[in-house]
Amino acid sequence: MTKYVYFFGDGRSEGKADMKNLLGGKGANLAEMSNLGIPVPPGFTITTEVCTLYYANNKNWPEGLKEQIEEAISKVEAATGKKFGDSKNPLLFSVRSGARVSMPGMMDTVLNLGLNDETVKGLEGENARFIYDSYRRFIQMYGDVVRGVDHDLFEEAIEKAKQKAGAKNDADLTADQLKELVEEYKEIYKKGTGEDFPQDPWTQLEGSINAVFNSWNNERAIRYRQLNNIPGDWGTAVNVQTMVFGNLNDNSGTGVAFTRNPATGENVFYGEYLMRAQGEDVVAGIRTPHPIADLKEEMPEIYAELEAIYHKLEQHYKDMQDIEFTIENGKLYMLQTRSGKRTAAAAVRIAVEMVEEGLIDEKTAILRVAPEQLDQLLHPMIDPNFKGKPITKGLPASPGAAVGRVVFTAQEAEEWAEKGEKVILVRVETSPEDIGGMASAQGILTARGGMTSHAAVVARGMGKCCVSGAGDVKVDFAKKLFKVGDTVVKEGDWISLNGTTGEVFLGQADLIEPQVTGNFATLMSWADKYRQMGVRTNADTPEDAQVARDFGAEGIGLCRTEHMFFKGDRIISIRKMILADTEEERRAALAELLPYQKDDFTELFKVMKGLPVTIRLLDPPLHEFVPHTQAEQEQMAKEMGRTIEDVKAKVQSLEEFNPMLGHRGCRLAVTYPEIYEMQARAIMEAACELNKEGYNIVPEIMIPLVGEVKELKYVKDKVEKVVKDTMADYGVSFDYHIGTMIEIPRACLTADEIAKEADFFSFGTNDLTQMTFGFSRDDAGSFIKDYIGKEILTTDVFATLDQTGVGALVEMAVEKGKSTNPGIKLGICGEHGGDPTTVEFCHKVGLTYVSCSPFRVPIARLAAAQAAVKNPR
Amino acid sequence: MTKYVYFFGDGRSEGKADMKNLLGGKGANLAEMSNLGIPVPPGFTITTEVCTLYYANNKNWPEGLKEQIEEAISKVEAATGKKFGDSKNPLLFSVRSGARVSMPGMMDTVLNLGLNDETVKGLEGENARFIYDSYRRFIQMYGDVVRGVDHDLFEEAIEKAKQKAGAKNDADLTADQLKELVEEYKEIYKKGTGEDFPQDPWTQLEGSINAVFNSWNNERAIRYRQLNNIPGDWGTAVNVQTMVFGNLNDNSGTGVAFTRNPATGENVFYGEYLMRAQGEDVVAGIRTPHPIADLKEEMPEIYAELEAIYHKLEQHYKDMQDIEFTIENGKLYMLQTRSGKRTAAAAVRIAVEMVEEGLIDEKTAILRVAPEQLDQLLHPMIDPNFKGKPITKGLPASPGAAVGRVVFTAQEAEEWAEKGEKVILVRVETSPEDIGGMASAQGILTARGGMTSHAAVVARGMGKCCVSGAGDVKVDFAKKLFKVGDTVVKEGDWISLNGTTGEVFLGQADLIEPQVTGNFATLMSWADKYRQMGVRTNADTPEDAQVARDFGAEGIGLCRTEHMFFKGDRIISIRKMILADTEEERRAALAELLPYQKDDFTELFKVMKGLPVTIRLLDPPLHEFVPHTQAEQEQMAKEMGRTIEDVKAKVQSLEEFNPMLGHRGCRLAVTYPEIYEMQARAIMEAACELNKEGYNIVPEIMIPLVGEVKELKYVKDKVEKVVKDTMADYGVSFDYHIGTMIEIPRACLTADEIAKEADFFSFGTNDLTQMTFGFSRDDAGSFIKDYIGKEILTTDVFATLDQTGVGALVEMAVEKGKSTNPGIKLGICGEHGGDPTTVEFCHKVGLTYVSCSPFRVPIARLAAAQAAVKNPR
Repeated sequence: MTKYVYFFGDGRSEGKADMKNLLGGKGANLAEMSNLGIPVPPGFTITTEVCTLYYANNKNWPEGLKEQIEEAISKVEAATGKKFGDSKNPLLFSVRSGARVSMPGMMDTVLNLGLNDETVKGLEGENARFIYDSYRRFIQMYGDVVRGVDHDLFEEAIEKAKQKAGAKNDADLTADQLKELVEEYKEIYKKGTGEDFPQDPWTQLEGSINAVFNSWNNERAIRYRQLNNIPGDWGTAVNVQTMVFGNLNDNSGTGVAFTRNPATGENVFYGEYLMRAQGEDVVAGIRTPHPIADLKEEMPEIYAELEAIYHKLEQHYKDMQDIEFTIENGKLYMLQTRSGKRTAAAAVRIAVEMVEEGLIDEKTAILRVAPEQLDQLLHPMIDPNFKGKPITKGLPASPGAAVGRVVFTAQEAEEWAEKGEKVILVRVETSPEDIGGMASAQGILTARGGMTSHAAVVARGMGKCCVSGAGDVKVDFAKKLFKVGDTVVKEGDWISLNGTTGEVFLGQADLIEPQVTGNFATLMSWADKYRQMGVRTNADTPEDAQVARDFGAEGIGLCRTEHMFFKGDRIISIRKMILADTEEERRAALAELLPYQKDDFTELFKVMKGLPVTIRLLDPPLHEFVPHTQAEQEQMAKEMGRTIEDVKAKVQSLEEFNPMLGHRGCRLAVTYPEIYEMQARAIMEAACELNKEGYNIVPEIMIPLVGEVKELKYVKDKVEKVVKDTMADYGVSFDYHIGTMIEIPRACLTADEIAKEADFFSFGTNDLTQMTFGFSRDDAGSFIKDYIGKEILTTDVFATLDQTGVGALVEMAVEKGKSTNPGIKLGICGEHGGDPTTVEFCHKVGLTYVSCSPFRVPIARLAAAQAAVKNPR
Repeated sequence: MTKYVYFFGDGRSEGKADMKNLLGGKGANLAEMSNLGIPVPPGFTITTEVCTLYYANNKNWPEGLKEQIEEAISKVEAATGKKFGDSKNPLLFSVRSGARVSMPGMMDTVLNLGLNDETVKGLEGENARFIYDSYRRFIQMYGDVVRGVDHDLFEEAIEKAKQKAGAKNDADLTADQLKELVEEYKEIYKKGTGEDFPQDPWTQLEGSINAVFNSWNNERAIRYRQLNNIPGDWGTAVNVQTMVFGNLNDNSGTGVAFTRNPATGENVFYGEYLMRAQGEDVVAGIRTPHPIADLKEEMPEIYAELEAIYHKLEQHYKDMQDIEFTIENGKLYMLQTRSGKRTAAAAVRIAVEMVEEGLIDEKTAILRVAPEQLDQLLHPMIDPNFKGKPITKGLPASPGAAVGRVVFTAQEAEEWAEKGEKVILVRVETSPEDIGGMASAQGILTARGGMTSHAAVVARGMGKCCVSGAGDVKVDFAKKLFKVGDTVVKEGDWISLNGTTGEVFLGQADLIEPQVTGNFATLMSWADKYRQMGVRTNADTPEDAQVARDFGAEGIGLCRTEHMFFKGDRIISIRKMILADTEEERRAALAELLPYQKDDFTELFKVMKGLPVTIRLLDPPLHEFVPHTQAEQEQMAKEMGRTIEDVKAKVQSLEEFNPMLGHRGCRLAVTYPEIYEMQARAIMEAACELNKEGYNIVPEIMIPLVGEVKELKYVKDKVEKVVKDTMADYGVSFDYHIGTMIEIPRACLTADEIAKEADFFSFGTNDLTQMTFGFSRDDAGSFIKDYIGKEILTTDVFATLDQTGVGALVEMAVEKGKSTNPGIKLGICGEHGGDPTTVEFCHKVGLTYVSCSPFRVPIARLAAAQAAVKNPR
């Protein structure tokens, strides 16, 4: 016979802490505490397996369950000296859910079970008021949870009773008035169900257990599981536990506490309690609880006991605990212990101090901090005390917070910023031309675009707060204002952005500056010690590169050369190149650009001091650079001695239906090899000159958007010739690498061929996700919310790599690539490279490094360390 | 010792016909003919392996080759009684290339080898003029081919000699004058090479053999191989053969002939000959050759011998032969036999008649006709005698020919056509709104768009001639004209299109109407007998469906419902649906559409009479249907009681950056399930009503653009509910299938999951190719020509499936799909479904059927049969 029911309590529990899968978190920890000699009200846990069988068996109990429950009740009766259903000394139960992982508030609970007209009489005596209050609560809870009687009917009845009695609070009702109310409640129950309120405690227990099982599949629980990736077939355990009453008398109370400060991590006992109260009273906030320290004076013995228990628990679980306790008539009971939630700062401090205390080792410390949390430590935050209400919410595109005055064009952003104004740049969407304005702004707000839109990607690269895709924001450029519903925000008005949540506020929020403490540095040093993947950064400027180095980046995994094209006057040369009619004209324009590009690379190489720098050759379609305004077109016509019509016609001829799938990446170099040749020369001239000065630069040249090995070979041969010629010109010779982005599905499918021509692969998972899903990230905003709302997708596939589909292609490419080029270096430089879940995937499939935006470097370092600790290679 | 050299001739050749890989086509057939007792000038073949070794060995001969050649020469000497290098009775050779497959004119040839100052003297006698002419030709050919002496220098010298002699033609020069010219030629040779002209026949032979090997890798040969997918490592054989001279005297001549008429297939001997001439004279066209029949009178014995030989060859090779012969001084020699090229009509007739004659079996007959050729039989063609010169060339987007007057808008096309005018619709590109105009036009010419652009796809569907992507065509709508260079074509001017070649002509070309003869029907019946895949059609209208049925389609594999949305007034309802603000408004607009859609399906089901009809639910993004002109927008504002600004704003909000990857396909139904619900109801109401009347319709509903099983399940559940509800409403029950397009890479990667929810997969290889390559087919025109020009791609991947990349995904999907749903039906409905190479691929990976545009149905039937014959399942 399978064991369905596990007794706990009295120091002789049948379960223990590591049986969470079977007993749920709560049940396993109750058993463990009791076995540690900690006072726990006795009870028993019905296993998660029973829940699964219950559903498999058409909501019926498996054979033998009833008998096992009876046996467990006997043990509880023996431990408590009370008797279930006895009219003199009745045993009362709470019935609670408890899944493998905490799903707070998602499932149902029934308290005070075992009360009926008989047992109430038996308990009456001096506690009559308390007992009738408990009984009426039980009827209401059972009616609502087990039988679906409308909650409000009970609430209306008690309101009427209070009016009638002239009572202000529930607590002002007398025993007799409550007794009367119980009768009314029973009437309500009968009306709602057509049956009398069940007097048989067994019936009550059976109904309550089933209610908990049923609540596993209520709507909010399903929703919660989907959002948190909890499988539906785990099921919930049911904990049936002896009731203890913190509201029994003045010698009773209840409290919740953390073994360390969950906000700061300081090693002090931290919590609150309330006398003559039940747990829900602490939560409800009607009365203000006292700090836990006060208990030392109020009940010194209880406090001492509690102190001993919390030390014991922390030593035992080796982690900060979140505990719940109840004092019933001067006796302490523990009702729950679990790992406590904490802020990032607290997580770091606790982890490091616990290593110092010898409680945990470094590897465990690494696992104790969620990498995503580190974001809190790296950006300014909105003061938690700020009371503003958000006017709208967009996507949390780039974390941190920003406060500034609204402007609507990049140019204004720059002009205002020069005058010393703090500004927020508000756009429908941003384009590469807005880079200057974005850099000048405190933060960016866009009405359109997803987590990987231009605004989002660039802002993250700059470590700048950005809220994107705020669809309710209706921008009216002509009137220089935007509307959200009826709210009108004009140019110059102050707003505040929370890039970590996507919230937009009117007015100026107070900000808290980031503090990277000594503990943070210690933790990161451990992370570096254990991780097996390198961590690089995506950076296009010396400034970004420096930020990333300060955050511990070990190289540049992606330098996008196109952003450089908008700097200063060089856009004119770019446009000349694009508008050229002949190769000769094109080469002349490219020659103008060469010195600029060379300078760019020289500066970058200098900052990176010999660390690897992967430079991606031009990637976006040319029409991203063409002049769109009349004035710009006139300027170009004049510069080039053309008619404005010629310029317009050329601009128009470059338009594309689907630019994402158009003439870009290495396709540009197939048509115009001279573009990549110029870039290769700029890279190599910079490297040659610096290496002559004693630097040790090994340039990595990356050819984007390859889908076919012959395409790579064609472009690579041209590039490599320039590389060799340049070294010959300078009379030097040093190592260099030429590799490719893997971002087209076909590149993954033919990676064995491509690897023969590549020194490295860098997975461009942004584009790979777009093409594998057929989702344009610029357009998906309009429907991806429906996909998440309808639970077709659980996460934004542009933020966390889709391991099933896109990941399968990455794995295939890794395998095929290694099969023909075992020494190939493998990296990832898509936005996913800074996502902890994706970092673990990258570790598992055997990548050499991940590359992410500067502000995510510490996150990736920690995530890589966790991946290595969890999955030793 | 490897055998490098194979003697042929004298009835005792060492090679035979099936040794083409080793001996090349020409060499193998020379050996075979000789063994059949047919007179062939003796000689020997140096194998293709030697060519490979020659390159591997730094252009040196492998050991033993020289000795084997010497031995072979001895045999030739024995067979001819002549002696190589002998001054009295010298053996002269031709040296010719011969690869596995014919590469006409790509490689080099040397004739008259063995002549030198000595042998010339030995031969002089009565043929002095002839001999010196041969010698001077040899010097020129050797100088040019073997040593790279400029061809023109020799031509200038002979021109001068003629002027000096007052001779009009080369033939007017006397023996002495030629003798003088020989000396001059030797001077030219010496100047060009710094060496005397080689007198040693061995040196001549060695040089000539190497020249042939070298010509395997000349530029035009490489190019030809790439265009025809011939591997570079095949190498060429070298045929060294005794010279025979058709120009020796009046008793000599040369000719080429086909064993049947290659234009009509009629079983008559067909060819031409010239007396006192060499092969090149027939080709050069200076003298007009005589029909082969004349030879019967001129040389009855030779003719009789030739007749016996051609019968023998056809019986032996069991195929129509293309033969070359030379008569030297009254003796007949065969120089070549090979399968003859033929027109589609001839191919069909010959194949069918050869079966009737018992020469070949039906399976062989099927393999004898290239499926692509059938296109010639199904469309009108430009009369081959039409002498017009094309003004430009675009892509051969839809075959056939068209003559009409130029119009520039769809509306004009319709108006002019109503007045009885034949028109050609000229557009920069077409959009769905142009459908009516396209249907009214004789043909369509577009300046932009590839082989799978809207214009191309729709035109092929209509069986209408289309030339797309004619980039030189500059349309000026305002002035109602287009320019190609300096040529101006105005509205109303006549032009002609050749959709099979992409050519555009000024004026009216004569057309030949298609003739589908009895032989055609016979061949197709054999194809149907042997093929193992079904052949369906892509058709959206009853008219198309009827055409396809007449061509043998066994069902509809793809009915695109969106084309129906433009018919008549229903676009207004569509626009109401799109511009709706609420689900209620949307449902009201959809309700207006329901009866139209139901009618569409009723008509289609009726034509198809119970054959399967796969209906794809709405696929394109909604913005394809929105009103773009001011007038249309005003109309919609009025219809819906909105402001024009509202309409404009809505239209703008639907714009997308990359519509191909945007809100379309089943994504629309995730957001607005009511769209698919309406379509499902229309399909089912039509099917229910017809099935009640006794039809036996099994509707197949296809959900497009699925990338994730949960997405399919969500949409399918909604559709299936409507299906069941509708059957219940009508009180009927019958089979139906709900399946999905597989067109997103992720669908292939997760096909095992998707197959659990799908009755069928239909591979949408257009989109799959776009996403696997990251090529937008609307934009790729601008760079794909560079890819083909630079030999990165060998074919247009939108015309022939890329088996390496896209094909790998298809195979994966087939395998995964069958693993979870072994009975799943598998089809293809992309444009590739009518491409013979792709059809063979589909057969090999195990698809159930292919579906293609109506006019390609016979092609697909034949291709499927060939695939089955070649690859029995």
